[in-house]
Amino acid sequence: MKKSIGPNTILHPNPVLIIGSYDKDGRPNIMNVAWGGICCSKPPCVGISLRKATYTYHNIVANKAFTVNIPSSKFVKEADMVGIYSGKEMDKFKKTGLTPIKSDVVNAPYVKEFPYILECKLLHTLEIGLHTQFVGEIIDIKADEEILGENGLPDIEKVNPMLYATGSQKYYEIGKFIANAFSVGKK
Amino acid sequence: MKKSIGPNTILHPNPVLIIGSYDKDGRPNIMNVAWGGICCSKPPCVGISLRKATYTYHNIVANKAFTVNIPSSKFVKEADMVGIYSGKEMDKFKKTGLTPIKSDVVNAPYVKEFPYILECKLLHTLEIGLHTQFVGEIIDIKADEEILGENGLPDIEKVNPMLYATGSQKYYEIGKFIANAFSVGKK
Repeated sequence: MKKSIGPNTILHPNPVLIIGSYDKDGRPNIMNVAWGGICCSKPPCVGISLRKATYTYHNIVANKAFTVNIPSSKFVKEADMVGIYSGKEMDKFKKTGLTPIKSDVVNAPYVKEFPYILECKLLHTLEIGLHTQFVGEIIDIKADEEILGENGLPDIEKVNPMLYATGSQKYYEIGKFIANAFSVGKK
Repeated sequence: MKKSIGPNTILHPNPVLIIGSYDKDGRPNIMNVAWGGICCSKPPCVGISLRKATYTYHNIVANKAFTVNIPSSKFVKEADMVGIYSGKEMDKFKKTGLTPIKSDVVNAPYVKEFPYILECKLLHTLEIGLHTQFVGEIIDIKADEEILGENGLPDIEKVNPMLYATGSQKYYEIGKFIANAFSVGKK
């Protein structure tokens, strides 16, 4: 018999999404978001949830654009750092040594050193509670050639992304392959 | 220099969420959703995106409730199966041998054999495109005692969940611990 543990924001796994945006003076900023993921196939969209207290919230409202940068696991220190401090108090690109590149399709910067990034145009804003969800249409994906699989898409084993575990608040790598989707369930 | 690969629904990792709902005749159904995750801390909320063509879509519209069931990796075959076939054509609880339990807080069934589940009341419905996003408030979490960590919350290593990789369409286990969040970035 299962035990009731009350309401909580527990779900496994969460992604580690580094959100790129420009502030009102055109300065690039990045922050770490765990509440997010793909939310529509056509048009391809990604949803990210932010508190109004964040610097990024106001940047997205102003520019109606953002990038979603997927860090490989070797960037765990940089990814965690940009989730702890605010763009109000420091230049997080300078602090981490990461390089901002201006997207050629939306008014937002992306991280040169990360394996691939989604360039997004704001499509919907949903007020939920402490968090506001921004739904961005994915206008383009920019990727390093060496992380592409045979189908021309980013391959998770080459990307070697992190995941975030709620509850214990820890980062993990991706583990071993289990099975092919849309396949193992047919057997 | 990064290569443009065009818009696509690529993001790593995605969770494997098994959604429980009742149909209009009170029959329990489960389906596999990869487009979803936590989207607000207060109130605690989870968002899941579904096509209108799914049986679950109509169940959630009718009952304004659903459960989010986190399978451990040993249930990969069952998890994949309930993502391939529709509740219109088969009783997926019977087919998989999984056991439906009626939630005591919302009008939806959960999966007895899975380590923990979120019981959700529909709070928002957002029409995006091919997918509709349902935002559910997490009213309670039911968990097996043996997967709880020292803090009383589900621990990812004991849960041993799956993750889904877009692009290659494969399931993976969780890998090795990298670092503590809100910590490694301070060093």
